[in-house]
Amino acid sequence: MKKFKKPDRQGVRHRSRGLSAGGSPRKDVLSGREFPPGRCVVGIHAVRELLRVRGRAVDQVWLREHFQDHSELKELHDLAKRLSAPIHTKSVANLDRVISAHQGVIAFTREEPELNWLALKNSQRACLIVLDEVEDPHNVGAILRTAWLFGAQAVLVPELRAAHLSPAVSKVAQGAVEHIPLVRQQALTEQLKELKDMGFWILGMSHEAKQDLFSLDIPQKVVWVLGSESSGIRKSIAGVCDDFVRIPQKNPEASYNVSVAAAIAMAQTFQAHGA
Amino acid sequence: MKKFKKPDRQGVRHRSRGLSAGGSPRKDVLSGREFPPGRCVVGIHAVRELLRVRGRAVDQVWLREHFQDHSELKELHDLAKRLSAPIHTKSVANLDRVISAHQGVIAFTREEPELNWLALKNSQRACLIVLDEVEDPHNVGAILRTAWLFGAQAVLVPELRAAHLSPAVSKVAQGAVEHIPLVRQQALTEQLKELKDMGFWILGMSHEAKQDLFSLDIPQKVVWVLGSESSGIRKSIAGVCDDFVRIPQKNPEASYNVSVAAAIAMAQTFQAHGA
Repeated sequence: MKKFKKPDRQGVRHRSRGLSAGGSPRKDVLSGREFPPGRCVVGIHAVRELLRVRGRAVDQVWLREHFQDHSELKELHDLAKRLSAPIHTKSVANLDRVISAHQGVIAFTREEPELNWLALKNSQRACLIVLDEVEDPHNVGAILRTAWLFGAQAVLVPELRAAHLSPAVSKVAQGAVEHIPLVRQQALTEQLKELKDMGFWILGMSHEAKQDLFSLDIPQKVVWVLGSESSGIRKSIAGVCDDFVRIPQKNPEASYNVSVAAAIAMAQTFQAHGA
Repeated sequence: MKKFKKPDRQGVRHRSRGLSAGGSPRKDVLSGREFPPGRCVVGIHAVRELLRVRGRAVDQVWLREHFQDHSELKELHDLAKRLSAPIHTKSVANLDRVISAHQGVIAFTREEPELNWLALKNSQRACLIVLDEVEDPHNVGAILRTAWLFGAQAVLVPELRAAHLSPAVSKVAQGAVEHIPLVRQQALTEQLKELKDMGFWILGMSHEAKQDLFSLDIPQKVVWVLGSESSGIRKSIAGVCDDFVRIPQKNPEASYNVSVAAAIAMAQTFQAHGA
Protein backbone atom coordinates (compact mmCIF):
# COMPACT_ATOMS: atom_id res chain seq x y z
CA MET A 1 0.00 0.00 0.00
CA LYS A 2 1.47 3.25 -1.13
CA LYS A 3 1.97 5.88 1.56
CA PHE A 4 0.62 9.35 1.07
CA LYS A 5 3.38 11.67 0.03
CA LYS A 6 3.72 14.67 2.27
CA PRO A 7 3.82 17.93 0.35
CA ASP A 8 7.01 19.89 0.81
CA ARG A 9 7.02 23.27 2.49
CA GLN A 10 5.91 25.21 -0.56
CA GLY A 11 3.41 22.57 -1.58
CA VAL A 12 5.20 22.19 -4.87
CA ARG A 13 7.43 19.65 -6.50
CA HIS A 14 10.52 20.25 -8.53
CA ARG A 15 10.46 18.32 -11.71
CA SER A 16 12.14 18.21 -15.01
CA ARG A 17 9.32 17.19 -17.24
CA GLY A 18 7.78 19.16 -20.03
CA LEU A 19 8.58 19.40 -23.68
CA SER A 20 10.72 16.27 -23.51
CA ALA A 21 10.80 13.27 -21.23
CA GLY A 22 14.31 13.82 -19.92
CA GLY A 23 15.46 16.30 -17.34
CA SER A 24 18.38 17.69 -19.28
CA PRO A 25 18.15 20.77 -21.48
CA ARG A 26 16.57 19.89 -24.81
CA LYS A 27 18.03 20.79 -28.15
CA ASP A 28 15.92 22.48 -30.75
CA VAL A 29 16.69 20.38 -33.81
CA LEU A 30 16.26 23.27 -36.21
CA SER A 31 18.28 25.95 -34.50
CA GLY A 32 20.58 23.98 -32.25
CA ARG A 33 19.41 26.26 -29.41
CA GLU A 34 18.51 24.74 -26.09
CA PHE A 35 15.19 24.92 -24.31
CA PRO A 36 15.39 25.14 -20.55
CA PRO A 37 14.29 21.99 -18.70
CA GLY A 38 10.96 21.79 -16.92
CA ARG A 39 7.53 22.71 -18.15
CA CYS A 40 6.68 25.33 -20.69
CA VAL A 41 3.92 27.87 -20.10
CA VAL A 42 2.35 29.61 -23.08
CA GLY A 43 0.24 32.71 -23.66
CA ILE A 44 -0.53 35.95 -21.86
CA HIS A 45 -3.01 34.62 -19.27
CA ALA A 46 -0.98 31.52 -18.43
CA VAL A 47 2.35 33.34 -18.05
CA ARG A 48 0.73 36.11 -15.98
CA GLU A 49 -0.64 33.52 -13.57
CA LEU A 50 2.72 31.71 -13.47
CA LEU A 51 4.50 34.95 -12.53
CA ARG A 52 1.80 35.80 -10.00
CA VAL A 53 1.83 32.41 -8.28
CA ARG A 54 5.45 31.25 -8.51
CA GLY A 55 7.32 34.26 -9.82
CA ARG A 56 10.54 33.29 -8.03
CA ALA A 57 10.56 29.87 -9.69
CA VAL A 58 10.46 31.08 -13.28
CA ASP A 59 13.66 30.04 -15.07
CA GLN A 60 13.16 32.04 -18.27
CA VAL A 61 10.62 34.31 -19.90
CA TRP A 62 10.72 34.54 -23.69
CA LEU A 63 9.07 37.64 -25.16
CA ARG A 64 8.67 38.34 -28.84
CA GLU A 65 10.57 41.19 -30.47
CA HIS A 66 8.81 44.56 -30.17
CA PHE A 67 6.84 43.36 -27.14
CA GLN A 68 6.96 46.99 -25.97
CA ASP A 69 4.28 47.81 -28.57
CA HIS A 70 1.80 45.48 -26.89
CA SER A 71 0.51 46.69 -23.51
CA GLU A 72 -0.10 43.24 -22.02
CA LEU A 73 3.30 41.90 -23.10
CA LYS A 74 4.95 45.06 -21.75
CA GLU A 75 3.14 44.50 -18.45
CA LEU A 76 4.40 40.90 -18.29
CA HIS A 77 7.91 42.11 -19.04
CA ASP A 78 7.78 44.61 -16.18
CA LEU A 79 6.38 42.02 -13.80
CA ALA A 80 9.09 39.49 -14.75
CA LYS A 81 11.75 42.16 -14.29
CA ARG A 82 10.47 43.04 -10.80
CA LEU A 83 10.67 39.34 -9.92
CA SER A 84 14.21 39.07 -11.36
CA ALA A 85 13.13 36.37 -13.81
CA PRO A 86 15.60 36.06 -16.71
CA ILE A 87 14.00 37.67 -19.78
CA HIS A 88 15.00 36.81 -23.37
CA THR A 89 13.74 38.58 -26.45
CA LYS A 90 13.15 36.12 -29.30
CA SER A 91 12.01 36.34 -32.89
CA VAL A 92 8.44 35.23 -33.59
CA ALA A 93 9.87 32.36 -35.67
CA ASN A 94 11.74 31.18 -32.60
CA LEU A 95 8.60 31.23 -30.45
CA ASP A 96 6.68 29.53 -33.26
CA ARG A 97 9.04 26.56 -32.95
CA VAL A 98 7.64 25.81 -29.49
CA ILE A 99 3.97 26.41 -30.35
CA SER A 100 2.27 28.67 -32.87
CA ALA A 101 -0.42 30.05 -30.55
CA HIS A 102 2.04 31.71 -28.14
CA GLN A 103 0.60 35.26 -28.12
CA GLY A 104 4.17 36.57 -27.95
CA VAL A 105 5.19 35.02 -24.64
CA ILE A 106 6.48 31.68 -23.36
CA ALA A 107 7.98 30.93 -19.95
CA PHE A 108 9.79 27.99 -18.38
CA THR A 109 9.65 26.68 -14.83
CA ARG A 110 10.52 23.49 -12.97
CA GLU A 111 7.75 23.86 -10.41
CA GLU A 112 4.21 22.64 -10.60
CA PRO A 113 1.43 22.40 -8.01
CA GLU A 114 1.29 19.15 -6.10
CA LEU A 115 -1.76 17.48 -4.68
CA ASN A 116 -1.88 17.42 -0.90
CA TRP A 117 -3.02 13.83 -0.32
CA LEU A 118 -3.20 14.21 3.43
CA ALA A 119 -5.49 17.22 3.18
CA LEU A 120 -7.59 15.27 0.70
CA LYS A 121 -7.85 12.36 3.12
CA ASN A 122 -8.90 14.63 5.97
CA SER A 123 -11.31 16.78 3.96
CA GLN A 124 -15.06 16.49 4.41
CA ARG A 125 -15.82 17.53 0.86
CA ALA A 126 -13.78 17.19 -2.31
CA CYS A 127 -14.05 16.75 -6.05
CA LEU A 128 -11.51 15.04 -8.31
CA ILE A 129 -11.56 14.41 -12.04
CA VAL A 130 -10.04 11.32 -13.64
CA LEU A 131 -9.41 11.49 -17.39
CA ASP A 132 -8.86 8.00 -18.73
CA GLU A 133 -6.86 8.26 -21.96
CA VAL A 134 -8.18 11.70 -22.85
CA GLU A 135 -5.29 12.95 -24.95
CA ASP A 136 -6.57 16.09 -26.67
CA PRO A 137 -4.75 19.04 -25.08
CA HIS A 138 -7.70 21.35 -25.73
CA ASN A 139 -10.00 19.16 -23.70
CA VAL A 140 -7.48 18.65 -20.89
CA GLY A 141 -6.64 22.37 -20.77
CA ALA A 142 -10.33 23.30 -20.75
CA ILE A 143 -11.04 20.82 -17.92
CA LEU A 144 -8.18 22.21 -15.81
CA ARG A 145 -9.56 25.72 -16.35
CA THR A 146 -13.07 24.71 -15.25
CA ALA A 147 -11.69 22.69 -12.31
CA TRP A 148 -9.85 25.78 -11.10
CA LEU A 149 -12.96 27.94 -11.31
CA PHE A 150 -15.23 25.44 -9.57
CA GLY A 151 -12.60 24.64 -6.93
CA ALA A 152 -11.98 20.99 -7.75
CA GLN A 153 -8.82 19.60 -6.16
CA ALA A 154 -7.01 17.81 -8.99
CA VAL A 155 -7.15 16.08 -12.36
CA LEU A 156 -5.73 12.53 -12.41
CA VAL A 157 -4.54 10.85 -15.58
CA PRO A 158 -2.81 7.53 -16.31
CA GLU A 159 0.91 7.56 -16.97
CA LEU A 160 0.51 6.36 -20.55
CA ARG A 161 -1.72 7.67 -23.34
CA ALA A 162 -2.67 10.82 -21.46
CA ALA A 163 -2.10 14.50 -21.94
CA HIS A 164 0.67 16.00 -19.85
CA LEU A 165 1.44 19.62 -19.01
CA SER A 166 2.32 20.44 -22.60
CA PRO A 167 2.59 23.99 -23.97
CA ALA A 168 -0.86 23.61 -25.57
CA VAL A 169 -2.48 22.47 -22.31
CA SER A 170 -0.97 25.43 -20.44
CA LYS A 171 -2.23 27.84 -23.11
CA VAL A 172 -5.81 26.56 -23.04
CA ALA A 173 -5.88 26.24 -19.24
CA GLN A 174 -5.14 29.98 -18.91
CA GLY A 175 -3.30 29.83 -15.60
CA ALA A 176 -5.17 26.88 -14.10
CA VAL A 177 -2.05 24.66 -14.32
CA GLU A 178 -0.52 26.79 -11.54
CA HIS A 179 -3.34 25.76 -9.21
CA ILE A 180 -4.82 22.41 -10.21
CA PRO A 181 -2.37 19.50 -10.10
CA LEU A 182 -2.40 17.28 -13.18
CA VAL A 183 -1.38 14.06 -11.45
CA ARG A 184 0.01 11.23 -13.58
CA GLN A 185 -0.60 7.85 -11.98
CA GLN A 186 1.22 4.72 -13.04
CA ALA A 187 -1.28 2.54 -11.18
CA LEU A 188 -4.53 4.42 -11.62
CA THR A 189 -6.82 1.58 -10.55
CA GLU A 190 -4.82 1.14 -7.32
CA GLN A 191 -5.03 4.88 -6.72
CA LEU A 192 -8.79 4.81 -7.18
CA LYS A 193 -9.05 2.02 -4.61
CA GLU A 194 -7.02 4.15 -2.19
CA LEU A 195 -9.37 7.05 -2.82
CA LYS A 196 -12.29 4.77 -1.91
CA ASP A 197 -10.53 4.05 1.39
CA MET A 198 -10.34 7.81 1.86
CA GLY A 199 -14.12 8.06 1.59
CA PHE A 200 -14.48 8.93 -2.07
CA TRP A 201 -17.22 7.64 -4.35
CA ILE A 202 -15.88 6.76 -7.79
CA LEU A 203 -18.50 7.67 -10.42
CA GLY A 204 -17.96 6.88 -14.07
CA MET A 205 -19.67 9.07 -16.65
CA SER A 206 -21.29 7.10 -19.45
CA HIS A 207 -24.18 7.90 -21.79
CA GLU A 208 -25.31 4.28 -21.30
CA ALA A 209 -25.72 4.63 -17.52
CA LYS A 210 -29.16 4.41 -15.92
CA GLN A 211 -28.53 6.91 -13.15
CA ASP A 212 -29.24 10.49 -14.26
CA LEU A 213 -26.77 13.14 -13.05
CA PHE A 214 -29.50 15.69 -12.46
CA SER A 215 -31.40 13.50 -10.00
CA LEU A 216 -28.30 12.18 -8.28
CA ASP A 217 -27.53 12.93 -4.65
CA ILE A 218 -23.90 13.88 -5.22
CA PRO A 219 -21.52 12.45 -2.59
CA GLN A 220 -19.50 14.84 -0.44
CA LYS A 221 -16.29 13.25 -1.69
CA VAL A 222 -16.57 12.39 -5.34
CA VAL A 223 -14.30 11.31 -8.18
CA TRP A 224 -15.75 11.80 -11.68
CA VAL A 225 -14.20 9.40 -14.19
CA LEU A 226 -14.38 10.35 -17.87
CA GLY A 227 -13.09 8.30 -20.79
CA SER A 228 -11.97 9.26 -24.25
CA GLU A 229 -14.70 10.23 -26.70
CA SER A 230 -13.82 7.40 -29.04
CA SER A 231 -13.53 4.47 -26.66
CA GLY A 232 -14.96 5.52 -23.28
CA ILE A 233 -13.64 4.33 -19.92
CA ARG A 234 -11.34 1.29 -20.04
CA LYS A 235 -12.63 -1.91 -18.45
CA SER A 236 -9.96 -1.96 -15.75
CA ILE A 237 -10.96 1.53 -14.61
CA ALA A 238 -14.69 0.89 -15.04
CA GLY A 239 -14.26 -2.13 -12.75
CA VAL A 240 -13.29 0.15 -9.87
CA CYS A 241 -16.22 2.57 -10.32
CA ASP A 242 -18.93 2.47 -7.65
CA ASP A 243 -21.59 3.53 -10.11
CA PHE A 244 -22.17 5.09 -13.51
CA VAL A 245 -23.97 8.31 -14.27
CA ARG A 246 -25.24 9.88 -17.47
CA ILE A 247 -26.02 13.45 -18.41
CA PRO A 248 -29.52 13.45 -19.89
CA GLN A 249 -29.59 14.13 -23.63
CA LYS A 250 -32.43 14.61 -26.07
CA ASN A 251 -30.65 12.81 -28.89
CA PRO A 252 -29.31 9.33 -28.29
CA GLU A 253 -27.03 9.34 -31.38
CA ALA A 254 -24.57 11.97 -30.17
CA SER A 255 -22.65 12.50 -26.96
CA TYR A 256 -21.30 15.43 -24.98
CA ASN A 257 -17.81 16.66 -25.56
CA VAL A 258 -15.62 15.43 -22.68
CA SER A 259 -14.79 18.95 -21.45
CA VAL A 260 -18.48 19.87 -21.51
CA ALA A 261 -19.40 16.68 -19.61
CA ALA A 262 -16.71 17.39 -16.99
CA ALA A 263 -17.92 21.00 -16.63
CA ILE A 264 -21.51 19.91 -16.07
CA ALA A 265 -20.43 17.32 -13.48
CA MET A 266 -18.37 19.95 -11.67
CA ALA A 267 -21.20 22.49 -11.81
CA GLN A 268 -23.56 19.98 -10.20
CA THR A 269 -20.94 19.09 -7.59
CA PHE A 270 -20.35 22.77 -6.82
CA GLN A 271 -24.08 23.24 -6.19
CA ALA A 272 -24.36 20.09 -4.07
CA HIS A 273 -21.29 20.91 -1.97
CA GLY A 274 -22.20 24.56 -1.50
CA ALA A 275 -19.78 27.38 -2.18
CA MET B 1 -41.94 45.32 -37.45
CA LYS B 2 -40.54 42.26 -39.21
CA LYS B 3 -43.01 39.51 -39.87
CA PHE B 4 -42.23 35.97 -38.82
CA LYS B 5 -41.06 33.94 -41.77
CA LYS B 6 -43.10 30.83 -42.28
CA PRO B 7 -40.94 27.74 -42.66
CA ASP B 8 -41.34 25.99 -45.98
CA ARG B 9 -42.77 22.52 -46.25
CA GLN B 10 -39.56 20.75 -45.31
CA GLY B 11 -38.69 23.26 -42.64
CA VAL B 12 -35.47 24.04 -44.44
CA ARG B 13 -34.10 26.83 -46.52
CA HIS B 14 -32.11 26.62 -49.71
CA ARG B 15 -29.07 28.76 -49.55
CA SER B 16 -25.82 29.26 -51.30
CA ARG B 17 -23.57 30.24 -48.49
CA GLY B 18 -20.59 28.38 -47.21
CA LEU B 19 -16.97 28.52 -48.12
CA SER B 20 -17.45 31.74 -50.11
CA ALA B 21 -19.95 34.54 -49.93
CA GLY B 22 -21.36 34.11 -53.42
CA GLY B 23 -23.82 31.54 -54.67
CA SER B 24 -21.85 30.47 -57.71
CA PRO B 25 -19.42 27.56 -57.69
CA ARG B 26 -16.10 28.57 -56.12
CA LYS B 27 -12.72 28.05 -57.70
CA ASP B 28 -9.98 26.36 -55.77
CA VAL B 29 -7.11 28.73 -56.46
CA LEU B 30 -4.49 25.98 -56.32
CA SER B 31 -6.07 23.34 -58.49
CA GLY B 32 -8.51 25.31 -60.60
CA ARG B 33 -11.17 22.79 -59.53
CA GLU B 34 -14.54 23.99 -58.41
CA PHE B 35 -16.16 23.47 -55.03
CA PRO B 36 -19.90 22.99 -55.15
CA PRO B 37 -21.96 25.91 -53.81
CA GLY B 38 -23.63 25.72 -50.41
CA ARG B 39 -22.24 24.67 -47.09
CA CYS B 40 -19.49 22.19 -46.50
CA VAL B 41 -19.81 19.43 -43.90
CA VAL B 42 -16.68 17.79 -42.53
CA GLY B 43 -15.81 14.60 -40.68
CA ILE B 44 -17.37 11.18 -40.12
CA HIS B 45 -19.96 12.13 -37.48
CA ALA B 46 -21.09 15.30 -39.25
CA VAL B 47 -21.42 13.71 -42.72
CA ARG B 48 -23.24 10.68 -41.27
CA GLU B 49 -25.80 12.99 -39.65
CA LEU B 50 -26.12 15.04 -42.85
CA LEU B 51 -26.88 11.87 -44.86
CA ARG B 52 -29.26 10.64 -42.17
CA VAL B 53 -31.22 13.89 -41.90
CA ARG B 54 -31.17 15.31 -45.42
CA GLY B 55 -29.71 12.56 -47.55
CA ARG B 56 -31.65 13.63 -50.65
CA ALA B 57 -30.26 17.16 -50.45
CA VAL B 58 -26.57 16.21 -50.52
CA ASP B 59 -24.96 17.61 -53.67
CA GLN B 60 -21.61 15.84 -53.40
CA VAL B 61 -19.75 13.50 -51.07
CA TRP B 62 -15.96 13.56 -51.28
CA LEU B 63 -14.23 10.48 -49.92
CA ARG B 64 -10.49 9.99 -49.66
CA GLU B 65 -8.73 7.42 -51.81
CA HIS B 66 -8.74 3.92 -50.31
CA PHE B 67 -11.79 4.74 -48.18
CA GLN B 68 -12.68 1.05 -48.54
CA ASP B 69 -9.95 0.24 -46.01
CA HIS B 70 -11.74 2.24 -43.31
CA SER B 71 -14.97 0.71 -42.04
CA GLU B 72 -16.70 3.98 -41.12
CA LEU B 73 -15.82 5.64 -44.43
CA LYS B 74 -16.98 2.54 -46.30
CA GLU B 75 -20.25 2.71 -44.38
CA LEU B 76 -20.70 6.38 -45.35
CA HIS B 77 -19.98 5.48 -48.98
CA ASP B 78 -22.65 2.76 -48.96
CA LEU B 79 -25.17 5.08 -47.31
CA ALA B 80 -24.48 7.86 -49.84
CA LYS B 81 -24.83 5.36 -52.69
CA ARG B 82 -28.21 4.14 -51.42
CA LEU B 83 -29.35 7.77 -51.30
CA SER B 84 -28.03 8.41 -54.83
CA ALA B 85 -25.76 11.19 -53.61
CA PRO B 86 -22.96 11.90 -56.11
CA ILE B 87 -19.73 10.41 -54.72
CA HIS B 88 -16.26 11.59 -55.72
CA THR B 89 -13.00 9.96 -54.66
CA LYS B 90 -10.32 12.58 -53.95
CA SER B 91 -6.72 12.54 -52.90
CA VAL B 92 -6.00 13.42 -49.28
CA ALA B 93 -4.17 16.53 -50.53
CA ASN B 94 -7.37 17.62 -52.24
CA LEU B 95 -9.41 17.19 -49.06
CA ASP B 96 -6.68 18.94 -47.07
CA ARG B 97 -7.27 22.03 -49.21
CA VAL B 98 -10.72 22.44 -47.67
CA ILE B 99 -9.71 21.63 -44.08
CA SER B 100 -6.99 19.43 -42.63
CA ALA B 101 -9.13 17.68 -39.97
CA HIS B 102 -11.48 16.04 -42.51
CA GLN B 103 -11.19 12.40 -41.35
CA GLY B 104 -11.38 11.37 -45.01
CA VAL B 105 -14.83 12.75 -45.81
CA ILE B 106 -16.38 16.07 -46.82
CA ALA B 107 -19.87 16.68 -48.18
CA PHE B 108 -21.70 19.61 -49.73
CA THR B 109 -25.32 20.65 -49.41
CA ARG B 110 -27.43 23.73 -49.98
CA GLU B 111 -29.88 22.98 -47.23
CA GLU B 112 -29.68 23.94 -43.59
CA PRO B 113 -32.19 23.78 -40.74
CA GLU B 114 -34.34 26.85 -40.33
CA LEU B 115 -35.76 28.21 -37.13
CA ASN B 116 -39.54 27.99 -36.93
CA TRP B 117 -40.34 31.43 -35.52
CA LEU B 118 -44.06 30.76 -35.29
CA ALA B 119 -43.53 27.61 -33.22
CA LEU B 120 -41.14 29.59 -31.05
CA LYS B 121 -43.76 32.29 -30.53
CA ASN B 122 -46.41 29.75 -29.58
CA SER B 123 -44.19 27.60 -27.38
CA GLN B 124 -44.55 27.59 -23.61
CA ARG B 125 -40.92 26.75 -23.02
CA ALA B 126 -37.83 27.47 -25.08
CA CYS B 127 -34.12 28.16 -24.86
CA LEU B 128 -32.07 30.20 -27.31
CA ILE B 129 -28.39 31.09 -27.29
CA VAL B 130 -27.05 34.40 -28.61
CA LEU B 131 -23.32 34.55 -29.33
CA ASP B 132 -22.24 38.16 -29.65
CA GLU B 133 -19.05 38.27 -31.73
CA VAL B 134 -17.90 34.82 -30.70
CA GLU B 135 -15.79 33.94 -33.72
CA ASP B 136 -13.83 30.84 -32.70
CA PRO B 137 -15.24 27.91 -34.71
CA HIS B 138 -14.36 25.44 -31.95
CA ASN B 139 -16.47 27.32 -29.44
CA VAL B 140 -19.38 27.81 -31.86
CA GLY B 141 -19.26 24.17 -32.96
CA ALA B 142 -19.11 22.96 -29.35
CA ILE B 143 -22.08 25.17 -28.40
CA LEU B 144 -24.17 23.84 -31.32
CA ARG B 145 -23.34 20.29 -30.21
CA THR B 146 -24.42 20.96 -26.60
CA ALA B 147 -27.53 22.85 -27.77
CA TRP B 148 -28.58 19.84 -29.82
CA LEU B 149 -28.12 17.46 -26.87
CA PHE B 150 -29.99 19.68 -24.38
CA GLY B 151 -32.74 20.47 -26.90
CA ALA B 152 -32.20 24.22 -27.26
CA GLN B 153 -33.96 25.71 -30.27
CA ALA B 154 -31.30 27.81 -32.00
CA VAL B 155 -28.07 29.77 -31.81
CA LEU B 156 -28.30 33.38 -32.96
CA VAL B 157 -25.29 35.39 -34.10
CA PRO B 158 -24.85 38.88 -35.57
CA GLU B 159 -24.31 39.16 -39.32
CA LEU B 160 -20.79 40.57 -38.91
CA ARG B 161 -17.84 39.31 -36.85
CA ALA B 162 -19.46 35.98 -36.10
CA ALA B 163 -18.74 32.39 -36.94
CA HIS B 164 -20.83 30.95 -39.76
CA LEU B 165 -21.44 27.35 -40.79
CA SER B 166 -17.82 26.84 -41.80
CA PRO B 167 -16.21 23.43 -42.37
CA ALA B 168 -14.54 23.69 -38.92
CA VAL B 169 -17.83 24.47 -37.17
CA SER B 170 -19.53 21.51 -38.86
CA LYS B 171 -16.66 19.21 -37.84
CA VAL B 172 -16.73 20.22 -34.17
CA ALA B 173 -20.54 20.25 -33.98
CA GLN B 174 -20.61 16.55 -35.00
CA GLY B 175 -23.97 16.60 -36.74
CA ALA B 176 -25.63 19.30 -34.63
CA VAL B 177 -25.65 21.73 -37.57
CA GLU B 178 -28.30 19.53 -39.20
CA HIS B 179 -30.63 20.19 -36.26
CA ILE B 180 -29.82 23.47 -34.55
CA PRO B 181 -30.20 26.54 -36.78
CA LEU B 182 -27.29 28.98 -36.65
CA VAL B 183 -29.26 32.13 -37.40
CA ARG B 184 -27.37 35.19 -38.62
CA GLN B 185 -29.21 38.39 -37.74
CA GLN B 186 -28.42 41.71 -39.36
CA ALA B 187 -30.34 43.57 -36.66
CA LEU B 188 -29.70 41.49 -33.57
CA THR B 189 -30.91 44.08 -31.04
CA GLU B 190 -34.22 44.42 -32.93
CA GLN B 191 -34.53 40.65 -33.00
CA LEU B 192 -33.98 40.47 -29.25
CA LYS B 193 -36.75 43.05 -28.73
CA GLU B 194 -39.05 40.91 -30.86
CA LEU B 195 -38.16 37.90 -28.74
CA LYS B 196 -39.15 39.88 -25.64
CA ASP B 197 -42.53 40.49 -27.27
CA MET B 198 -42.75 36.72 -27.74
CA GLY B 199 -42.37 36.23 -23.98
CA PHE B 200 -38.63 35.60 -23.76
CA TRP B 201 -36.39 36.86 -20.99
CA ILE B 202 -33.06 38.07 -22.32
CA LEU B 203 -30.30 37.17 -19.84
CA GLY B 204 -26.73 38.27 -20.41
CA MET B 205 -23.97 36.16 -18.92
CA SER B 206 -21.27 38.19 -17.22
CA HIS B 207 -18.82 37.38 -14.45
CA GLU B 208 -19.52 40.86 -13.05
CA ALA B 209 -23.25 40.21 -12.58
CA LYS B 210 -24.76 40.07 -9.09
CA GLN B 211 -27.34 37.41 -9.85
CA ASP B 212 -25.99 33.89 -9.43
CA LEU B 213 -27.08 31.34 -12.06
CA PHE B 214 -27.40 28.55 -9.50
CA SER B 215 -29.96 30.43 -7.39
CA LEU B 216 -31.87 31.85 -10.35
CA ASP B 217 -35.45 30.90 -11.09
CA ILE B 218 -34.89 30.25 -14.80
CA PRO B 219 -37.69 31.65 -17.00
CA GLN B 220 -39.73 29.28 -19.14
CA LYS B 221 -38.69 31.17 -22.25
CA VAL B 222 -35.09 32.26 -22.01
CA VAL B 223 -32.40 33.70 -24.24
CA TRP B 224 -28.82 33.35 -22.92
CA VAL B 225 -26.53 36.05 -24.33
CA LEU B 226 -22.79 35.36 -24.29
CA GLY B 227 -20.08 37.70 -25.50
CA SER B 228 -16.59 37.07 -26.75
CA GLU B 229 -14.00 36.08 -24.15
CA SER B 230 -11.89 39.13 -24.87
CA SER B 231 -14.48 41.88 -24.90
CA GLY B 232 -17.73 40.50 -23.50
CA ILE B 233 -21.19 41.54 -24.64
CA ARG B 234 -21.34 44.73 -26.73
CA LYS B 235 -23.14 47.71 -25.18
CA SER B 236 -25.90 47.74 -27.79
CA ILE B 237 -26.75 44.12 -27.02
CA ALA B 238 -26.28 44.53 -23.24
CA GLY B 239 -28.78 47.39 -23.40
CA VAL B 240 -31.53 44.99 -24.49
CA CYS B 241 -30.83 42.42 -21.75
CA ASP B 242 -33.43 42.13 -18.98
CA ASP B 243 -30.82 41.06 -16.45
CA PHE B 244 -27.31 39.70 -16.06
CA VAL B 245 -26.28 36.43 -14.53
CA ARG B 246 -22.95 35.02 -13.44
CA ILE B 247 -21.73 31.48 -12.95
CA PRO B 248 -20.17 31.33 -9.47
CA GLN B 249 -16.40 30.93 -9.54
CA LYS B 250 -13.85 30.43 -6.79
CA ASN B 251 -11.20 32.54 -8.50
CA PRO B 252 -12.09 36.05 -9.57
CA GLU B 253 -9.09 36.44 -11.93
CA ALA B 254 -10.15 33.89 -14.53
CA SER B 255 -13.37 33.27 -16.42
CA TYR B 256 -15.18 30.31 -17.93
CA ASN B 257 -14.60 29.39 -21.52
CA VAL B 258 -17.61 30.55 -23.54
CA SER B 259 -18.61 27.03 -24.62
CA VAL B 260 -18.39 25.85 -21.00
CA ALA B 261 -20.48 28.82 -19.80
CA ALA B 262 -23.11 28.11 -22.48
CA ALA B 263 -23.18 24.42 -21.54
CA ILE B 264 -23.72 25.20 -17.85
CA ALA B 265 -26.51 27.67 -18.68
CA MET B 266 -28.18 25.07 -20.92
CA ALA B 267 -27.78 22.34 -18.26
CA GLN B 268 -29.52 24.57 -15.69
CA THR B 269 -32.25 25.43 -18.19
CA PHE B 270 -32.77 21.76 -19.03
CA GLN B 271 -33.26 20.99 -15.34
CA ALA B 272 -35.59 23.94 -14.79
CA HIS B 273 -37.71 23.20 -17.85
CA GLY B 274 -37.89 19.47 -17.20
CA ALA B 275 -37.10 16.90 -19.87
